[in-house]
Amino acid sequence: MTGAEVMLAALRAKGVSVCFANPGTTELDVVRAFETAPELRCVVGLQENVCTGAADGYGRMLERPAATLLHLGPGFANGIANLHNARRARTPIVNIIGDHTSWHLPYDAPLTSDIESLAWPVSGWVHRIAGTADIALATMEAVDRTRNNGGQGTTLIFPADFQMAPCDAGAPDGASPAGRDESVEEDAPFDAAAAADRLKSAGRILFLLGGGGPESGLGARAQRAAARLCAILPAHAYAETFPSRSERGVGLPGFDRLPYFPEPARKALDPADLVVLVGALPPITYFGYEGHDSRMVGDERLLTLCLPGENAAERLEAIADALNAPAYTAAPVDLPAVPEGSLTPAGIAAVLARELPDDAIVSVEGGTCGYPFYAASAGARPHTALTNTGGAIGQGLPVAMGAAVACPDRKVVALLSDGSTQYTVQTLWSLAHEGLDVVVLIAANHQYAILRNELRRGGAALSAQAEAMTSLDNPRIDWVQLAQAYGVSASRAATTDELSEQLKNAFVVKGPALIEMAL
Amino acid sequence: MTGAEVMLAALRAKGVSVCFANPGTTELDVVRAFETAPELRCVVGLQENVCTGAADGYGRMLERPAATLLHLGPGFANGIANLHNARRARTPIVNIIGDHTSWHLPYDAPLTSDIESLAWPVSGWVHRIAGTADIALATMEAVDRTRNNGGQGTTLIFPADFQMAPCDAGAPDGASPAGRDESVEEDAPFDAAAAADRLKSAGRILFLLGGGGPESGLGARAQRAAARLCAILPAHAYAETFPSRSERGVGLPGFDRLPYFPEPARKALDPADLVVLVGALPPITYFGYEGHDSRMVGDERLLTLCLPGENAAERLEAIADALNAPAYTAAPVDLPAVPEGSLTPAGIAAVLARELPDDAIVSVEGGTCGYPFYAASAGARPHTALTNTGGAIGQGLPVAMGAAVACPDRKVVALLSDGSTQYTVQTLWSLAHEGLDVVVLIAANHQYAILRNELRRGGAALSAQAEAMTSLDNPRIDWVQLAQAYGVSASRAATTDELSEQLKNAFVVKGPALIEMAL
Repeated sequence: MTGAEVMLAALRAKGVSVCFANPGTTELDVVRAFETAPELRCVVGLQENVCTGAADGYGRMLERPAATLLHLGPGFANGIANLHNARRARTPIVNIIGDHTSWHLPYDAPLTSDIESLAWPVSGWVHRIAGTADIALATMEAVDRTRNNGGQGTTLIFPADFQMAPCDAGAPDGASPAGRDESVEEDAPFDAAAAADRLKSAGRILFLLGGGGPESGLGARAQRAAARLCAILPAHAYAETFPSRSERGVGLPGFDRLPYFPEPARKALDPADLVVLVGALPPITYFGYEGHDSRMVGDERLLTLCLPGENAAERLEAIADALNAPAYTAAPVDLPAVPEGSLTPAGIAAVLARELPDDAIVSVEGGTCGYPFYAASAGARPHTALTNTGGAIGQGLPVAMGAAVACPDRKVVALLSDGSTQYTVQTLWSLAHEGLDVVVLIAANHQYAILRNELRRGGAALSAQAEAMTSLDNPRIDWVQLAQAYGVSASRAATTDELSEQLKNAFVVKGPALIEMAL
Repeated sequence: MTGAEVMLAALRAKGVSVCFANPGTTELDVVRAFETAPELRCVVGLQENVCTGAADGYGRMLERPAATLLHLGPGFANGIANLHNARRARTPIVNIIGDHTSWHLPYDAPLTSDIESLAWPVSGWVHRIAGTADIALATMEAVDRTRNNGGQGTTLIFPADFQMAPCDAGAPDGASPAGRDESVEEDAPFDAAAAADRLKSAGRILFLLGGGGPESGLGARAQRAAARLCAILPAHAYAETFPSRSERGVGLPGFDRLPYFPEPARKALDPADLVVLVGALPPITYFGYEGHDSRMVGDERLLTLCLPGENAAERLEAIADALNAPAYTAAPVDLPAVPEGSLTPAGIAAVLARELPDDAIVSVEGGTCGYPFYAASAGARPHTALTNTGGAIGQGLPVAMGAAVACPDRKVVALLSDGSTQYTVQTLWSLAHEGLDVVVLIAANHQYAILRNELRRGGAALSAQAEAMTSLDNPRIDWVQLAQAYGVSASRAATTDELSEQLKNAFVVKGPALIEMAL
C-alpha cells in the first residue's frame, strides 16, 4: 500500500465515508488512492470554500466527520471562511492538506507557505505527518479528535513524498492505538431534583436553547421538555440566535430565536431573573455596540444546565419529570396567510412555510428572508433548520449541498440572499454534477441589505458612496442564467402565485433547481 | 475627522488612489469615510479574492500599492490565495482589515478569529491599530513598508471603535514621521568592468531574467541589453518561468521562459557554466520530483547580478557597454501561421498573437493556452504579460481586472483556463460594473488538464476515479450564459475563423467581453 492508501483506509476504518475534494498536484497520490477505496465517496467542488462548507453541512446532519482534501496553504486558505463557520457550529471535520515533498520545503518554492499558521485559527488540532509510520495513527487520531470540545475540525498536513511511499504496515483496523487513552472522564451524575429546586425558586426564567443534534437544546425532545417547563414555571424559552441545527415546525413549541440586534435582545433578556443555558453559550452582542455591554447577561443571572454537545434532552426531561410537569401538547399553529401580488420577504416566508415538504432541511443564510421565514415556519411541516453560525457569508449553499449528500432521502431547501450566495456560487455546479436534491431560493434585492441596515441604525442617512458600495444593482445578476450556466434548472418568480407554483414543481422532482425571487 | 477619515487621508497623502473593497459591518465607518475622500476610487468585488487579485494586478502595473478593504478574519481569509500570489510577485499592497471594536474582542463573538495568524503568511508586516493616535502614522508606515524586500504586502488591522472615534490631529500630510529613518542603505557602486571580466571568462552563460517593472530583467531595456550580451558571449537568456510582469513582442528578443517541468528545465540549465541571476531567484523545481534535486543549479555555478526589485536594465547595459557589444537590432519575427478549422491551443495562440492590439496587457493563467501563446507571442505587437507567480489558481481574471483599473487606456486580455477561472468567477461582475476594458478568453476543455498531465507523467494510465476527480464535463459549464448572467457580453468560438472574427470585434469596442473557446 502507498501512504495515501493507508490514510484512506484509516479514514474508512474510523467511519469516514465522504470526502469533499479540490485536489492539486501535491495531492495526486491521494487522488490515485481513491481507486482503492470505493466506499469512500469523493465529491468535487470547484472552489475550496464549497468543499469545507459542504463538510460542515454534512457533519451537522450526521454528527460524524466528512474529510476535505485541499491543496497546500493557498488552497486551504480558500476554505478557511467556511471552516470558521464550522468551528462555531462545532462540526466534526477532518481536513487533509497535501504539501510539498518534505525535502522540497526548505527551498521556498512558489506554492510554499506557512500552512500551520493558516490552519490553527480554524482547527482544534493540526498535525503534520512526519513519516510513513505516522500516517495510520495520525489519521485515526485526527478523526477521534473531531469529537473533542463538543465537536471540532482537525487538520492533517500530508507531504507528497509520504503519500507515494510504500507502507508495509498494511491497512489499519480502526482500533484505538495502544497506549492512547480514549476513556472520557465521568461527570458527576446529573441531579435533576436539585436543578428543579433551583428553577422553582429562580423567579422569571429564560431558557436559551443551543442547537445541534437530536439530543441538543434545539432537538425535538429538548424543545418539548422546555415547553413543559414553561407551562408550569414563570419561564420563556428562546433558541440561540444562530443555531447550527434545530428542529422546527408543527408539533414543536415554535420558540423564537434570540434577536440579533442588542436592543430587542436585551428586551427579551433583561426581565429574566435567571437565564438558563441549555447547550448555548452566554449571550453576547454580535458586534460591539456603543452603549451596550458585550455580555448581555452577568454571571449572577446565568445558570449552565449543559454545555454544547452534552445531552440537553435528558436533563430537561428529567427536570420536567421532577416537577411533575404535564406532558407536552402541541398548540395548534396557524400558517400565515399568503399575501397576493409582488413578492415581499413576508410573502416569501408564508409561501415557503406552506409548501415545505415533510422532513425537509432548510439551510438559511441572509437576513432578508431568514428572519421572516423563521417567524412563519413554526406552522410548517416538521423540518430541520441550519443557520450561519460564524458570520462568514457564503455558507448557506455549500451547507445545503453537504446536507443533501448526508441525507439523500430528504428534500433540502437553501433560502439565501443574493449578496452572500455570490461568495460560493460555484456550488451550483456540484449540485448539478451530483444530482443533489436541493431547491435554491435566491432573495434577489440586488444590494448588501444587512450593511445598509447597519449603516442606517440610529436613523442615519445613506451617503452616495455608501450606497454605491452596497449596491449590486449595476448590472443586476441574472440568477436564472447563472444557474443554467452551471447545469441547474432555474426560473424567476415575481409574485407569490408564481413562487408557489414554481416551488410545487421543484418539490415534486428530484435534483437541483433554483428560483430567483425578485424583490 | 473620524479615525477612518484619517486613515483614508493618510492613504491619499501617501499616493494611494484605489481601494478594492468587500466591506462588512466592522468596516462601516471606513465605508462612511469614503464620502470624504472622493479622489480615492473604491472598486467593489463580490468576493475577497477578487479584491486581492485585482490589487496584485494594479500594483504590478503601477509599482505602487492599491489598498484592499476586507472584513475580519474570514473575509481576509477569502483573499489569502491571491495575496500569496502577490507575495511571490513582490507586489506592493496595503490590506485594511476591519475588526471588532477593541473592547468586544475578549468575548469571542461569532466573527472573532486570530487575524494575525492568518495575515502573517502573506504579509511582510502586520500591525494592529492600537488607538486613534496610531492611525495616521501606522497607515503611512504600512504604505512605506510595501517598498521593502523588493515589494510586499502589508496588513493593518483596524478595530471598529477607532474607525468611528473622533481624531483631533487632523489630516496627515504624508511627510515621514519624525524619528523614523527612511534612508536606504547605499550599496557599493556597481562595477561594470569587473562584471564584464567575470562574464568574459565564464564559459557558457545562461542569463535568467526576472520579471517586474520597466527596469527589471524582463523590461524592454534589460532584454535588449541581454540580447547584446548574447550576441558577443557564448550566452543564452531565459525569462524566469512565472514572471510577475514582462515585456514581449516585436522589437524585443523573444527569450523563452525557463521550462516548468524539471527535465526540460535541466536541459536548458545543465550546459551552462554560469547561471547569471538578473532579478530572478536561483532556479528550483516547482514541486519536489523524485530523482531531481530541488535546487537545479548549485551555488558554484550561480552569479547574482541583481536582486528582485533592483535596476537590472542599468547593470546589463553597463556590462554590454563595457564589452563594447554592438547595439541591439531586433531580428525579424514571423508570426505563426493560423491553422484552419477547429480550435487547438496552438491555433488559439496564433490567432491571439496576430490580433493582439498594440500595447495590450495579457494576463495569462492556465497551461492549456499559456505556453503555446508565449511561444507565439514573440512576433505579436508589443505587449505586457502577467503570469501566475505563486501557483494559487484563480488569479488571472482578478489580475486582469486590476491591470485594467491601473491602465484604463490599454486593452487587457485575460487568457485563461476554465478550471482555474472558476475560483474567482465573480470577477466578471466587477468588470461589467466598472466597464473595464478586458477581453476574457476561456480555454474550455472541461477538465483539470494540469492534474491529468501530472498524473500521466512517466506514462501512467489515468484511473477511473482520477479521471472522474479531474473532469469538469458533467455538466459542462456554459461560459456564454455565465458571462451574460454577470452583464458581460459573450460569444463562443469553435474554429480559428470564429475566434479571429470575435476577437476583432471585441478589440474595437471598449468594455468587457468574454469568448468561450471550445477545445
